[in-house]
Amino acid sequence: MKKQSKNRPSIVLIGSGNMGTQLSKRLFQKGQNVVQVFSRKAEKAEKLGKAIKADFTNDLKKIRVDADLYILAVHDDFIGSVAKKMSKIIHPNSLVTHTSGSTPSTVIEPHFKRFGVFYPLQTFNIHKKPAWSQIPVCLHASDESDLNFLKKIANAISQKVYFLNDEQRGIAHVAAVFANNFSNHVFAIAQEILEKEDLPFDLVRPLILETANKIRNANPNAMQTGPAVRGDDETIQRHLEYLKKDKDLKAIYQLLTQHIKKEKS
Amino acid sequence: MKKQSKNRPSIVLIGSGNMGTQLSKRLFQKGQNVVQVFSRKAEKAEKLGKAIKADFTNDLKKIRVDADLYILAVHDDFIGSVAKKMSKIIHPNSLVTHTSGSTPSTVIEPHFKRFGVFYPLQTFNIHKKPAWSQIPVCLHASDESDLNFLKKIANAISQKVYFLNDEQRGIAHVAAVFANNFSNHVFAIAQEILEKEDLPFDLVRPLILETANKIRNANPNAMQTGPAVRGDDETIQRHLEYLKKDKDLKAIYQLLTQHIKKEKS
Repeated sequence: MKKQSKNRPSIVLIGSGNMGTQLSKRLFQKGQNVVQVFSRKAEKAEKLGKAIKADFTNDLKKIRVDADLYILAVHDDFIGSVAKKMSKIIHPNSLVTHTSGSTPSTVIEPHFKRFGVFYPLQTFNIHKKPAWSQIPVCLHASDESDLNFLKKIANAISQKVYFLNDEQRGIAHVAAVFANNFSNHVFAIAQEILEKEDLPFDLVRPLILETANKIRNANPNAMQTGPAVRGDDETIQRHLEYLKKDKDLKAIYQLLTQHIKKEKS
Repeated sequence: MKKQSKNRPSIVLIGSGNMGTQLSKRLFQKGQNVVQVFSRKAEKAEKLGKAIKADFTNDLKKIRVDADLYILAVHDDFIGSVAKKMSKIIHPNSLVTHTSGSTPSTVIEPHFKRFGVFYPLQTFNIHKKPAWSQIPVCLHASDESDLNFLKKIANAISQKVYFLNDEQRGIAHVAAVFANNFSNHVFAIAQEILEKEDLPFDLVRPLILETANKIRNANPNAMQTGPAVRGDDETIQRHLEYLKKDKDLKAIYQLLTQHIKKEKS
């Protein structure tokens, strides 16, 4: 595979965080031609560059000027400003994309007329290899041929490729906040409740795994269990009585309980 | 293993729902001596009894009078009334337990002086074999020797055995509502948001699995990500703008976001 990479479109990856690291490693693993990585931190740039046999730099002025694709895996807030700086360095006709779920592709538009999004919808950790083949890669591009170009690259790293425009991707990102950030937060609340009483979080770890596993092949609205969906008001009252010490937790319990009841009815 | 079961304490299992079915199958698989199962439905009693080579009945009056242990895996609301009926049939010195997280053991006390709880903290499905060895089994008994007796049986089916009194089990159950019911509900909201816009729930399935997998060996409060913990108010405002069409979802988003911010600060 890697032998072919010289003939493949050249990619420059900007950023060496969780997303940048995992995405560039996957592209490399799948024989894609990542020619250079940029990180503001020299050490990280070197480490990642060496890992994927690519050039590396911590100086934005030294990025390749003629790559076929630039992927900006930087913090949402910096996409526009990095694109602006790049516009003074690289070819104006370059294809420049970002990897953000919540940022419109149009933040790149003032600086490059060929712009798009290459958004793998997953939570990444720099130390843990993602299960790439099942990760939805959400693509968008200002131009149809660019979109097809992105699709070929996305297909190389995942079996799940979607075309989502800015509005659709924004909606997917709201859903992702519920699916990931808010679920993690209710797990954290469970931890808080247990630890306050010197009970181990291990009591609910298997339950959490099973809750997620259950919806691999089913829909969560069909899998709802618990006192709210059963209409078990006696248990709900007992829980609220216990939670009265913490008015925030009580409010969250009440609001979610009411919403489960309402959805059911 | 099964050859030994004749010398082992005899167990009568009352109930053939998700819990009753999975628990009696596990006890049988691990060579425990389940002598009889009861279900109100004759068909279910027969099916389960045959599956675990135990007697079966759908007539409470016909349950064995002299078993070493009775486990009531019935709906929370019926534990007291079933115990009462049983008190007119079986030996008054019998050890009677239930499998409920949210019901005090004391609902059995008016009817039997030896009472307790045998609560496997997991969400069960009648069709799916649970990963029993890691399921926390929470035990309680009115008497120390009965508690040790329950511990031997629990150790046979799981590596994770805990002693939790009624108050502690009640707290664990509140935590379980957050960890399971509320997490599933935020998954359901994600589904609702996506489907309303004709986007597939598959977009967030890998994210959900990863969110749960991440806390196998970590604590959720340390794993929190997203706009709230980042203090990314621009994204939060964009999400609230989108959610304004549904004031319930907007309220849930706001409350959870505020709570994440507060916990962080």
